[in-house]
Amino acid sequence: MTLLVKGGTVVNADYTRQADVLIEGGTVAAVGTGLDVPAGTEVIDAGGAYVMPGGIDPHTHMELPFMGTVASEDFFSGTTAGAVGGTTTIIDFVIPSPQQDILEAYHTWRGWAEKAATDYSFHVAITWWDESVREAMGTLTRDFGVNSFKHFMAYKGAIMCDDEVLVNSFTRAGELGALCTVHAENGELVAHLQNKLISMGITGPEGHPQSRPSAVEGEAADRAIRIAQVLNVPLYIVHNSCIESLQAITRARNDGQRVFGEVLAGHLLVDDAVYRSTDWDYAAHHVMSPPFRPKEHQAALWRGLQSGMLQTTATDHCCFCTPQKRMGHNNFTRIPNGTGGVEDRMHVLWHHGVNTGRLTPSEFVAITSANAAKIFNIYPRKGVIAPGSDADIVIWDPSRERTISKDTHHQKIDFNIFEGMTVRGINTVTIANGQVVWKDGDIRTVRGAGRYVDRPTFPSYFDAVRRVAEVTAPSAVERMGAAG
Amino acid sequence: MTLLVKGGTVVNADYTRQADVLIEGGTVAAVGTGLDVPAGTEVIDAGGAYVMPGGIDPHTHMELPFMGTVASEDFFSGTTAGAVGGTTTIIDFVIPSPQQDILEAYHTWRGWAEKAATDYSFHVAITWWDESVREAMGTLTRDFGVNSFKHFMAYKGAIMCDDEVLVNSFTRAGELGALCTVHAENGELVAHLQNKLISMGITGPEGHPQSRPSAVEGEAADRAIRIAQVLNVPLYIVHNSCIESLQAITRARNDGQRVFGEVLAGHLLVDDAVYRSTDWDYAAHHVMSPPFRPKEHQAALWRGLQSGMLQTTATDHCCFCTPQKRMGHNNFTRIPNGTGGVEDRMHVLWHHGVNTGRLTPSEFVAITSANAAKIFNIYPRKGVIAPGSDADIVIWDPSRERTISKDTHHQKIDFNIFEGMTVRGINTVTIANGQVVWKDGDIRTVRGAGRYVDRPTFPSYFDAVRRVAEVTAPSAVERMGAAG
Amino acid sequence: MTLLVKGGTVVNADYTRQADVLIEGGTVAAVGTGLDVPAGTEVIDAGGAYVMPGGIDPHTHMELPFMGTVASEDFFSGTTAGAVGGTTTIIDFVIPSPQQDILEAYHTWRGWAEKAATDYSFHVAITWWDESVREAMGTLTRDFGVNSFKHFMAYKGAIMCDDEVLVNSFTRAGELGALCTVHAENGELVAHLQNKLISMGITGPEGHPQSRPSAVEGEAADRAIRIAQVLNVPLYIVHNSCIESLQAITRARNDGQRVFGEVLAGHLLVDDAVYRSTDWDYAAHHVMSPPFRPKEHQAALWRGLQSGMLQTTATDHCCFCTPQKRMGHNNFTRIPNGTGGVEDRMHVLWHHGVNTGRLTPSEFVAITSANAAKIFNIYPRKGVIAPGSDADIVIWDPSRERTISKDTHHQKIDFNIFEGMTVRGINTVTIANGQVVWKDGDIRTVRGAGRYVDRPTFPSYFDAVRRVAEVTAPSAVERMGAAG
Amino acid sequence: MTLLVKGGTVVNADYTRQADVLIEGGTVAAVGTGLDVPAGTEVIDAGGAYVMPGGIDPHTHMELPFMGTVASEDFFSGTTAGAVGGTTTIIDFVIPSPQQDILEAYHTWRGWAEKAATDYSFHVAITWWDESVREAMGTLTRDFGVNSFKHFMAYKGAIMCDDEVLVNSFTRAGELGALCTVHAENGELVAHLQNKLISMGITGPEGHPQSRPSAVEGEAADRAIRIAQVLNVPLYIVHNSCIESLQAITRARNDGQRVFGEVLAGHLLVDDAVYRSTDWDYAAHHVMSPPFRPKEHQAALWRGLQSGMLQTTATDHCCFCTPQKRMGHNNFTRIPNGTGGVEDRMHVLWHHGVNTGRLTPSEFVAITSANAAKIFNIYPRKGVIAPGSDADIVIWDPSRERTISKDTHHQKIDFNIFEGMTVRGINTVTIANGQVVWKDGDIRTVRGAGRYVDRPTFPSYFDAVRRVAEVTAPSAVERMGAAG
Ligand SMILES: [Zn+2]
Ligand SMILES: [Zn+2]
Ligand SMILES: [Zn+2]
Ligand SMILES: [Zn+2]
Ligand SMILES: [Zn+2]
Ligand SMILES: [Zn+2]
Ligand SMILES: [Zn+2]
Ligand SMILES: [Zn+2]
Repeated sequence: MTLLVKGGTVVNADYTRQADVLIEGGTVAAVGTGLDVPAGTEVIDAGGAYVMPGGIDPHTHMELPFMGTVASEDFFSGTTAGAVGGTTTIIDFVIPSPQQDILEAYHTWRGWAEKAATDYSFHVAITWWDESVREAMGTLTRDFGVNSFKHFMAYKGAIMCDDEVLVNSFTRAGELGALCTVHAENGELVAHLQNKLISMGITGPEGHPQSRPSAVEGEAADRAIRIAQVLNVPLYIVHNSCIESLQAITRARNDGQRVFGEVLAGHLLVDDAVYRSTDWDYAAHHVMSPPFRPKEHQAALWRGLQSGMLQTTATDHCCFCTPQKRMGHNNFTRIPNGTGGVEDRMHVLWHHGVNTGRLTPSEFVAITSANAAKIFNIYPRKGVIAPGSDADIVIWDPSRERTISKDTHHQKIDFNIFEGMTVRGINTVTIANGQVVWKDGDIRTVRGAGRYVDRPTFPSYFDAVRRVAEVTAPSAVERMGAAG
Repeated sequence: MTLLVKGGTVVNADYTRQADVLIEGGTVAAVGTGLDVPAGTEVIDAGGAYVMPGGIDPHTHMELPFMGTVASEDFFSGTTAGAVGGTTTIIDFVIPSPQQDILEAYHTWRGWAEKAATDYSFHVAITWWDESVREAMGTLTRDFGVNSFKHFMAYKGAIMCDDEVLVNSFTRAGELGALCTVHAENGELVAHLQNKLISMGITGPEGHPQSRPSAVEGEAADRAIRIAQVLNVPLYIVHNSCIESLQAITRARNDGQRVFGEVLAGHLLVDDAVYRSTDWDYAAHHVMSPPFRPKEHQAALWRGLQSGMLQTTATDHCCFCTPQKRMGHNNFTRIPNGTGGVEDRMHVLWHHGVNTGRLTPSEFVAITSANAAKIFNIYPRKGVIAPGSDADIVIWDPSRERTISKDTHHQKIDFNIFEGMTVRGINTVTIANGQVVWKDGDIRTVRGAGRYVDRPTFPSYFDAVRRVAEVTAPSAVERMGAAG
Repeated sequence: MTLLVKGGTVVNADYTRQADVLIEGGTVAAVGTGLDVPAGTEVIDAGGAYVMPGGIDPHTHMELPFMGTVASEDFFSGTTAGAVGGTTTIIDFVIPSPQQDILEAYHTWRGWAEKAATDYSFHVAITWWDESVREAMGTLTRDFGVNSFKHFMAYKGAIMCDDEVLVNSFTRAGELGALCTVHAENGELVAHLQNKLISMGITGPEGHPQSRPSAVEGEAADRAIRIAQVLNVPLYIVHNSCIESLQAITRARNDGQRVFGEVLAGHLLVDDAVYRSTDWDYAAHHVMSPPFRPKEHQAALWRGLQSGMLQTTATDHCCFCTPQKRMGHNNFTRIPNGTGGVEDRMHVLWHHGVNTGRLTPSEFVAITSANAAKIFNIYPRKGVIAPGSDADIVIWDPSRERTISKDTHHQKIDFNIFEGMTVRGINTVTIANGQVVWKDGDIRTVRGAGRYVDRPTFPSYFDAVRRVAEVTAPSAVERMGAAG
Repeated sequence: MTLLVKGGTVVNADYTRQADVLIEGGTVAAVGTGLDVPAGTEVIDAGGAYVMPGGIDPHTHMELPFMGTVASEDFFSGTTAGAVGGTTTIIDFVIPSPQQDILEAYHTWRGWAEKAATDYSFHVAITWWDESVREAMGTLTRDFGVNSFKHFMAYKGAIMCDDEVLVNSFTRAGELGALCTVHAENGELVAHLQNKLISMGITGPEGHPQSRPSAVEGEAADRAIRIAQVLNVPLYIVHNSCIESLQAITRARNDGQRVFGEVLAGHLLVDDAVYRSTDWDYAAHHVMSPPFRPKEHQAALWRGLQSGMLQTTATDHCCFCTPQKRMGHNNFTRIPNGTGGVEDRMHVLWHHGVNTGRLTPSEFVAITSANAAKIFNIYPRKGVIAPGSDADIVIWDPSRERTISKDTHHQKIDFNIFEGMTVRGINTVTIANGQVVWKDGDIRTVRGAGRYVDRPTFPSYFDAVRRVAEVTAPSAVERMGAAG
């Protein structure tokens, strides 16, 4: 089956031009004008709209078991919601319990994900350490297409890594050509503040941000960066929410270190006033970690995207419905952490990013798909519209509007952190693997149509990392007779 | 005529892959494996080497009349030397005298450049201001393919622009969709220091750097950036040589401003010890502005390239032979300013950039061609190997070595600032407009084969600039009855 | 006559202790406990309150002729208002018209100031340049106790200095051991924006901040700093109002440069929302330069005081009543620039500085008097309570409150930018030159009681400046036979 | 007994003036000219030299048991050497072993110190944690004049504190009004690198700096700062040796945090080339932690002193003679860490600080005594020449020279890291507690003449800390009916 997207303006991260896109099977066959189109090709008229790579959300948690419950969005519903919003690939997380066999956990998640409607891949979390973990990391990279490992610096007493685990795992990942990623919050300080707040009788959702001030994130970001620097491994920091971690990344990148930063759509647009709401449910629905921040942080994060200090955007999509949130009704530390957004990310980023002049359309593509594809080494299969690439494509009408609401969204959650926001510039068509999965309100996703995406190790920046290792190798001084 | 570059690894700024390149006429016809190759196609075996876009040097001065003499390198010899070193496009400068008709100057330079062996284009300097200049800027952008204007903030009493001219010209360029560029040094301070040094009897070349400390560059860079910010126009700062201007650019980019920075190969590798040489000729041959800097500046500039705060590399190729330099034998302010390097830039950048792990091969392509092509709006015609692009290509052998010397180089100057440097990683073949112009020591350039490259206005970053203008437009407050 | 302030806590910039203060004539005779007190000494019971040096306001404009009118506050009323609010010394400005004889202007201002109730001194502005100005600077420092010169970088076509004047004057001041100060705004950009706004029909007070964005201040601050750096002279930047100039100062100080920064009470506490008022008079009463800024700037300026990057606080007290402001009723560029505050500075700084934990009481003394005294070289005569110091003292009750209002203040202006603000911590007694001039609502100032304060040249930081000049002196290279 | 220092220029941190100093018993009785001098007063003619407060070295380790040996310098010899070099007070460290009773350790050190010739005090290290440690901290502050606690972030497996201990101890110190101090190096990374280097066969002293790169110090400094920020306690970082930790402090102070930074004379002047010496003993004698750094760090540290981002200077005086150093002859991790310098600090700081124009004489006093006295709350008893202050005074001849050498110094160590350095500007007389202890080569120190200096808690900056605690106290949101 072939498909022609005709009459649009193709936007890639490197440039923009008027061109048609011919799709054969699941891949792009040609991009250009006056293409030679086979008989029987279905034609979609882009009508002058933008034609862009489908979004990659590199940070989601579908059907995650967490804090005594399970995230309400599953791999099918979640990838469907993503498709509706223009996202055609997700990278989710395998999170083994401490002492759990890593490979076993990996296979569990693979099983869950078989129902996905669009393509997906997995980061694997390192939540504890021994020789078996070290070996499992090798197996995962060699045999299972994993090229990134996640580390939680928060959640003391649960999945938190101390410096010793970080040093071990980062070293190992470096050998394997895999990318280390971290959730950066100082778990010791969070635990201290949680105890203090609860002991003061502050038990509502407003205790959540007060127990996780931006300084605890800044600390952890800086620590992870320094450990990566000393061990000469690249680093990716997920969900940077604040000035402090942005500064840490900026400092490192300006020093020539290979550090990447992700930012969530929510952290770019929602501020911490939400926690002071007298509506407990409303406040609790914003409980996620790191929390939403005072307004100056949002402005800074946008500048981080503009300057290139932050490269990717994600959602940390992790849905809990009201009854689940209420598990923490008398203790904010028991409110399941997480918010949704996989459906809305592309829309809110275009509206607040492109319509305001912060980003060009090409830069929008960079931060919504191309950069993630490059960093996680699936470019140019993903993240670009070019011959040979997967046919993951959105047709984007810059004049079309949508008002976001939990009542109309397709996410399996009874809340939306962007409720009531009207955005201009949305996808009217989504194509995934060459199939139209969303068109003008018509959802056509197919359960299980998504494929697992293998991600090879040693992305191109490891070329530089290896040279640095040679140039900076430790050296001995030759001495005669040593001491005395 | 068709040509096939076979068996290489194609390196573009966005990614690297093994592929063959088919060239038909002056453009790339196809990139891939198993290409359908017409009979009679000439095949060049890349032998596993890298195949990269030919370099773009966005800052040269061929046969420039300056300081009472004329630069020794002409457009043919200079583009030939460039081709030998892997550079296939230059952007030179039209520099009208104050009060000279701008268009007349433009045509003069166009005439001189007709002898060029490879493609070329022109920035046009604004050295004075009245209504006619304003109109000429319009004509140049509309009818003559000019999309960038240069401003000298130094050279008081000659071609220096004061703030009033900068404000006028930047405003006009913004309307036209053209990019403003500046040579950033505070001319008032330079003049003051020159007078002071001469009056102290410091007349040798060592007076040159002492009259142009890095603070005068930092000041001017910051000033140009602030003026551009207030007027909401993008800005390009040529030949950043020091920490101060890098900091100014870094600050601006981190604030979301669209400022671009260029760095010269010389400033990355040569330090200011050269001016203390007791060999007057040696010292004088390094007289250029801005001057070479203490070592910490070189380290910082490399980090600027790594972090993306600097995007382009150039040479400011402007050759004066020893007898010309000696015009300032008793007064350093009369030594013609300029050094060569168009032949060496790509080689020294690969050696010190890629071999050390500072840059990946893709990043090398970005800073030697792709970024310049994007900024000056000739991408993807230039700066990438893709179907439809100009066939400007180098075959790059990462193991081949060369020792740089004035005795063996092809530049028309009796000195080389990189004399004696052995570099590993050089081009063995250069193809320009589909013609092999350099192959293993054999020079095949043709006088006049180069074409003038029209550069359209309104590069993509103007999309964002225009939105910013809308969002930040001044607004009045409605009041009843006004004052009292 | 002797006076004993008994039972208080003496706060100096270096430390705090319980002590009595004995005053004989106009100076402090002793500080301590169990002092030997002459018979007949008048005793003032401090009642446990703080006893601190009287404030120094280093930036006022009493009865200034400006923009076609004259500031409403004269030297007697203004110093009286200052005394009521705890300020016992002002440094005002002599501002010659371009081409006016500098000494003549100086004597004119000296004449006006004879009515002052408390001590005063004068900065002298350099508004133009020729040999006579150069000589007058020498005369002023040698014979008239002037050790600081002011330069306006804004007000194009009036008193603005271009770079050439700055270089000349800074050089001269450096020779004389006098401190250069600048009003930092890029006058060229301001003029451009004023024209643009007026031509767009934006004529109300809201045009004022739009014509003077913080970038124009940042530019000028950086330029002045760089010029001072190159010329190796210390620099003082008046009324820093924004992040941009604070950053410039911070950068310079971290590089070891001797740059001082002043901030106004108004800029610390008032934001730019005032200009959007629909009440023209209200908006116009806030027209001063630099204008009030968005809120993030206030937070940054406070941090600047805390970190020591800003050292002094002032008011730029320059009062214009409503009818005067209305001179610009149809053109914001004609609204006389200026606001009051000499009476309120100490109160608002204590309330927002000390009560919030930003500053300790000793740090409050530093930023309200001691630092200014040191920088302008009148320490320890002023700025400290120590034997031999002038008896300029306030008794400060940290629990006493006051609500600021134009209806109750003693300033000669029908507006107060702090209207309605309730502050806790105010002076209950002010002593100037050993005389009680304010006590619990009773004003006892005497017309003409104030003395002109001579300020000697070469403050202590010039010790370092001179050594730097030696260490960094330009040097020649000895060469045989020079060129060729 | 009374003493008059006559004819000198008294230099305090706040200002400088010509004055005589009258000493009665151990304290300063008067400072001024024309003093009323009792009969029988001994007169010392200062001969126009500077008269300054004696130095305070806030970081020494006399007779410390460490790494299997004991530091060779004892409290008598060490304070004597200090007195010779102008230092009249030291603050040493009580370092309990893990699990050792803190008070017991305190008394042990007190016993050792009774032999001291000049005044001394003690920081107490927290090397482990339980309830008893918490209580001992209270006892020490209440009953034993301790107001600062030290934490080692390095030395894994020995005295290293993990984040949990830091959080506990910082919180406790904050309650007690005591200052937290840290040795900032990430012990986990150091241990990892030590193992790696040893396993590579790099066993010589050059392994020492390679196992402790500046990034590990920067990490720990930032972490300690963030923990202190979150807990709202002031922080003092000892022996900052590198750009990274300076940047962390600078960032924090610019954000308004109360962080203090110390720098060692050695780190200001010695670079890491020493470790590449082929003379093992020479290299080993420089083994201390943090190690000496590449040259750019020295320049940065000086700028830190100039900008006020670093406030104090110390030596970490901890002497080990050659045979002791050789304990690590086949394993650098066993070389006892430490270098001397208590005798040389004041001399090298004057020479390289004042003679170069980096510091004024008053700033020299600030960084050698006054700032330490203020931070550790013994000002104005120490750190200033004023009536009532301890008579710890040096007479300083700015023209007198000395060449530093282990052959002539008075430190009990067979090595000097400043060997061969000629300095200009040294003390010709030292007075401690009113006694002349050093005069023109004549040592007059008395064993046991030094006194233990009680340091009260709650230095003035705690005034601000307490206010911040109030202003930022956590708060609950009142909600009706809570969740659902
Ligand atoms: Zn997370
Ligand atoms: Zn997550
Ligand atoms: Zn130039
Ligand atoms: Zn040039
Ligand atoms: Zn002003
Ligand atoms: Zn003013
Ligand atoms: Zn230590
Ligand atoms: Zn120590």
